[in-house]
Amino acid sequence: MLFDSNSISKLDRFYRSNLINSITGFKSLNLLGTLDPKGISNLAIFSQVFHVGADPALAGILFRPNPGSLHSLSNIENTGFFTLNHILPEFISKAHWTSAKWEISEFEGVGLTEEYIGDFKAPFVKESEIKIGLTFEEKHHLKINGTTLVIGRINVIQIPDNVLSGDGFVNLQSAKSVAGIGLDGYFFENQITRFSYAKAETPPKVI
Amino acid sequence: MLFDSNSISKLDRFYRSNLINSITGFKSLNLLGTLDPKGISNLAIFSQVFHVGADPALAGILFRPNPGSLHSLSNIENTGFFTLNHILPEFISKAHWTSAKWEISEFEGVGLTEEYIGDFKAPFVKESEIKIGLTFEEKHHLKINGTTLVIGRINVIQIPDNVLSGDGFVNLQSAKSVAGIGLDGYFFENQITRFSYAKAETPPKVI
Repeated sequence: MLFDSNSISKLDRFYRSNLINSITGFKSLNLLGTLDPKGISNLAIFSQVFHVGADPALAGILFRPNPGSLHSLSNIENTGFFTLNHILPEFISKAHWTSAKWEISEFEGVGLTEEYIGDFKAPFVKESEIKIGLTFEEKHHLKINGTTLVIGRINVIQIPDNVLSGDGFVNLQSAKSVAGIGLDGYFFENQITRFSYAKAETPPKVI
Repeated sequence: MLFDSNSISKLDRFYRSNLINSITGFKSLNLLGTLDPKGISNLAIFSQVFHVGADPALAGILFRPNPGSLHSLSNIENTGFFTLNHILPEFISKAHWTSAKWEISEFEGVGLTEEYIGDFKAPFVKESEIKIGLTFEEKHHLKINGTTLVIGRINVIQIPDNVLSGDGFVNLQSAKSVAGIGLDGYFFENQITRFSYAKAETPPKVI
């Protein structure tokens, strides 16, 4: 199939969203944990997290201009702290469910556990095995579509010894870290699972 | 293992590079094709490509401040055109080898084939099955470490019909698209292969 700029712009909105979200390749998947100024925790799934540099140790996160993303973004700007937590196969449904509109903390809503490491001022996910704590460094506003790029400095890493090679390489397969495809695809143990649009009332269904 | 900001900053340089490059999760892998002002082709492997938006259709690419990346970046700024091409298991060694310092076009050096689609002014990789053509839209300079973020608009997509679902979702496993881990890890068909640092004189060795 060959699409050009004209046919891409004329695609059905949901078809285009699935296609363009999948076409750049496999995605990292992380649960992003923050605290609001009142100390209430927030947890949101992000597939637009990427390596920025090793010295200083930096990661980038892109925030879409939607209410869920903006809640995480404003918490980061208010507190300066956030966490990234890898997703394991046994809690992909809960991870996907964080994207629903919750009136309570997503931790409580989906049934994941807040964990605090030292005096780091953002919640980690206890069920994750690879956990990263970051502080806000820099942000950029993308004019073309209103998204915001945040650069965070990596200040905490918790990782099981048995997935860490002698030269620092992380075996993400042994770690059972889940990869993302598109908007709703989860890739792990050589299989792809997709989930329905997340609503707070009912857990996501496999589609 | 628990690392804090102090222990991260004291890590051996190569260990930290492997750790921080792997820790954010699986990466997309793409070969980025450009033409220089004289029409000589350039091909470079990139693991920092990510989804930015579906309408308009956008992807982001982060360029490290090293000579290889800057060559691709200056070609994009001069011509306005570039391509992203997924990597298949049968040519991961050639894909990795593009990162060596070549005096000739990397296409010729590693043995991949330039392909042109319509009047699009950048080379695609004939051996890739998923190919994306983009035009330059916007760039941002990251102050903290001198990297450059480029946003490109997706104008061409070529994709095999059999990996495209009815709703636009791309089955990257059926497409045999390779995912990246860290600086030198390639994940496909449930196995990880790592390659030695790329030099033009000899093909990369599996490590």
